Amino acid sequence: MVVPALIERKRDGGALAAGEWRELILAYSRDSVPDYQMSALLMAVLWRGLAPAELNALAEAMLDSGDRLRWDGIDRPLVDKHSTGGVGDKTSLLLAPMLAACGVAVPMMSGRGLGHTGGTLDKLESIPGFRTGLSLRETEAQVRRIGCAMIGQTPEIAPADKRLYALRDVTATVESIPLISASIMSKKLAEGLNGLVLDVKTGSGAFLPGETQALELARTMIGLGEAHGCRTVALLTAMDRPLGRAAGNALEVEESIAGLSGEGPADLMEVTYALGAEMLLTAGLAGDPRDARKQLEQSIASGRAREKFGQLIEAQGGNPAILDDPAVLPQADVIEIFTAPRDGVVTRVEPRRIGRAIIELGGGRQKVDDIVDPAVGFVITARPGDAVRVGEPIASIHARTEDAAARAAAALAQAIEIGDAAAPLPLVSHRVTAGGVERL
Amino acid sequence: MVVPALIERKRDGGALAAGEWRELILAYSRDSVPDYQMSALLMAVLWRGLAPAELNALAEAMLDSGDRLRWDGIDRPLVDKHSTGGVGDKTSLLLAPMLAACGVAVPMMSGRGLGHTGGTLDKLESIPGFRTGLSLRETEAQVRRIGCAMIGQTPEIAPADKRLYALRDVTATVESIPLISASIMSKKLAEGLNGLVLDVKTGSGAFLPGETQALELARTMIGLGEAHGCRTVALLTAMDRPLGRAAGNALEVEESIAGLSGEGPADLMEVTYALGAEMLLTAGLAGDPRDARKQLEQSIASGRAREKFGQLIEAQGGNPAILDDPAVLPQADVIEIFTAPRDGVVTRVEPRRIGRAIIELGGGRQKVDDIVDPAVGFVITARPGDAVRVGEPIASIHARTEDAAARAAAALAQAIEIGDAAAPLPLVSHRVTAGGVERL
Repeated sequence: MVVPALIERKRDGGALAAGEWRELILAYSRDSVPDYQMSALLMAVLWRGLAPAELNALAEAMLDSGDRLRWDGIDRPLVDKHSTGGVGDKTSLLLAPMLAACGVAVPMMSGRGLGHTGGTLDKLESIPGFRTGLSLRETEAQVRRIGCAMIGQTPEIAPADKRLYALRDVTATVESIPLISASIMSKKLAEGLNGLVLDVKTGSGAFLPGETQALELARTMIGLGEAHGCRTVALLTAMDRPLGRAAGNALEVEESIAGLSGEGPADLMEVTYALGAEMLLTAGLAGDPRDARKQLEQSIASGRAREKFGQLIEAQGGNPAILDDPAVLPQADVIEIFTAPRDGVVTRVEPRRIGRAIIELGGGRQKVDDIVDPAVGFVITARPGDAVRVGEPIASIHARTEDAAARAAAALAQAIEIGDAAAPLPLVSHRVTAGGVERL
Repeated sequence: MVVPALIERKRDGGALAAGEWRELILAYSRDSVPDYQMSALLMAVLWRGLAPAELNALAEAMLDSGDRLRWDGIDRPLVDKHSTGGVGDKTSLLLAPMLAACGVAVPMMSGRGLGHTGGTLDKLESIPGFRTGLSLRETEAQVRRIGCAMIGQTPEIAPADKRLYALRDVTATVESIPLISASIMSKKLAEGLNGLVLDVKTGSGAFLPGETQALELARTMIGLGEAHGCRTVALLTAMDRPLGRAAGNALEVEESIAGLSGEGPADLMEVTYALGAEMLLTAGLAGDPRDARKQLEQSIASGRAREKFGQLIEAQGGNPAILDDPAVLPQADVIEIFTAPRDGVVTRVEPRRIGRAIIELGGGRQKVDDIVDPAVGFVITARPGDAVRVGEPIASIHARTEDAAARAAAALAQAIEIGDAAAPLPLVSHRVTAGGVERL
């Protein structure tokens, strides 16, 4: 294997053979290909893209660089969902217990927040005692016992992806649809799933804001999933405003409990039901979308999903008392009410500004090793399209200090626009399968 | 300076500020920017190109990473020429003494052969005792004394270029016109020149075979030269066949001496005079091309150029006896005559095949540290367009062993095509200046 010749071929728009990708990733894992050749190749991939066969080979090589979850003899279908990330997106916290309550096995592996987007692990860790660092064997045992587990990427899963991601992060080679897809799917495929539902965000707060790129990402990941025997479906959902009202780690856990108790905000529940229905259908446990939706509503109405969340928290060392008493969650020292600065219609609630304001409050990450304050954030009750009167409370700010709250209020004043008419994106706009794209 | 942000900007088609290029190259020279970030940036440059201001800044930063030749008080104009490389191109060996004989100061810094192309340093080092590794101060003293010196890139000249080139070589980022231009010009500008003539080869044996790319390279280098107060002119010359008859190090020195003695092959002399005339004009020592040409012819007819070559060889430790007795040069053990395999017209003498056959004979380099056999090579008397009869001698093969000679003969049979009609490129096709392109 002559590495410069491989880089040259990709640079000039050619393709590497599956065996070449495999050998390259193996050699890189063993330190016999230096970072400076890999980063030049990654930039060439960003430029020229990857053919489907290359992408499959790359994802497989990353998958095979590590261990995977094993499910021999399990009697439930294994399904997970993945979101490309947003602000206020706590659907994972609702879906894992809801789907487990409906008979699906959910080995959910999530990430931490970075940049303006939140991360499921950070939210879970705001629950006192909650442990996300389970080993693969612990995860398997817990899923077999209670039907779900919510963990972080373990060192055994796709270590080559972990190294490549760290290199991409410092060489401006993150924003490549095939590289993003291979990175996500190598980890998801390591979960040994029968089905996977992708929540691909669109709109200004999404990693890829445009519909065209979101669809391309969805199709690319679906191609990878299906090529590895995992039924994969994607929904494009709106991230031109935060999802639900709460944004901030403990605040989002509290809203998730409300959702599991039948009191969730309408937009959050609509996206949760849409994703959950696809998960149930992929699992083969529902005959049609109506049936799926009914089962999910029933899991909440019956209290089984809420109960399952309690089991999950307890199994992972957390304090299940939060279910009945949200005050057990970390609380902010300062809570201030934010009021509408004038009469009008809320035209925008800009998620990037909200996400950045949460980082300013200490509740997010600029760098991977930043420590997150679980208590801070916003509860924004006004939605795009709502008519508001000057002085009407439209949000609350949760901060450590008065100063921080004042800065957050200024950020909120920038993020929430009041004007004449709003045109928010539809909450769930497209459904993508291996068969094609359906506009909803 | 946040390096990933700079890479990202270039990746997305933006430009870096002059100060950013300067800081980046400085930091890279001091090992505070790692190779893996630089190689990703280089690939992005290959993809997106460099704006003229970026290119100037990059070339200047590389130039400023090292020392340069100093010419305070010198009373002659300083001019050099640079060739993009070819097979059989020994014009440098003629031009340095010819121009010095005409009153120009020629501090000529050359390279070694790599791939199918030959290198001036390798040719010079076939002269017993010849030393190309002069220091900058030795070079200055010799040019002041005899009017010319022929040296290799010293460690003091543009060390950042040297490091970048080594990185580009292993990351498939060599083939970028702005990077090639910055690399060449950072070294040429370190010579402290008043004028520079570029010989940009075109045709199948050229580094960039196509006319469009050759013109772009010429324009880019001219832009860089002129921006730094160095009058720069380029000629596009033919490399669809070897230049002259001899290809191989000592054989080319012998042909150069013939040229300086008034007995050079017509094509070699035409290109040499064309380049030399541009050098004299750039130096301001000739009123017009006719006058320039006359002075150059006179330098040969009078014997002064030949004598100057003797002084140059002696000054750099070589044995000037080669001027009168070519047998002092290294000789091949086996010399075989190659004859025309059939009647017809020579349609092609393919320079890449010839260059590769010389490497096979041991006379060139595949890797930078290969050792070169000075004696081997070819003398090909048949030119494209010549009518030949079967059995007529058209070349001689100079080899170490009978086996090597037999392999070289097979390669020659592939390289020399005999058919009906030839359409070689014009020897000198375009003249490019800051003012524009003139087809000749």
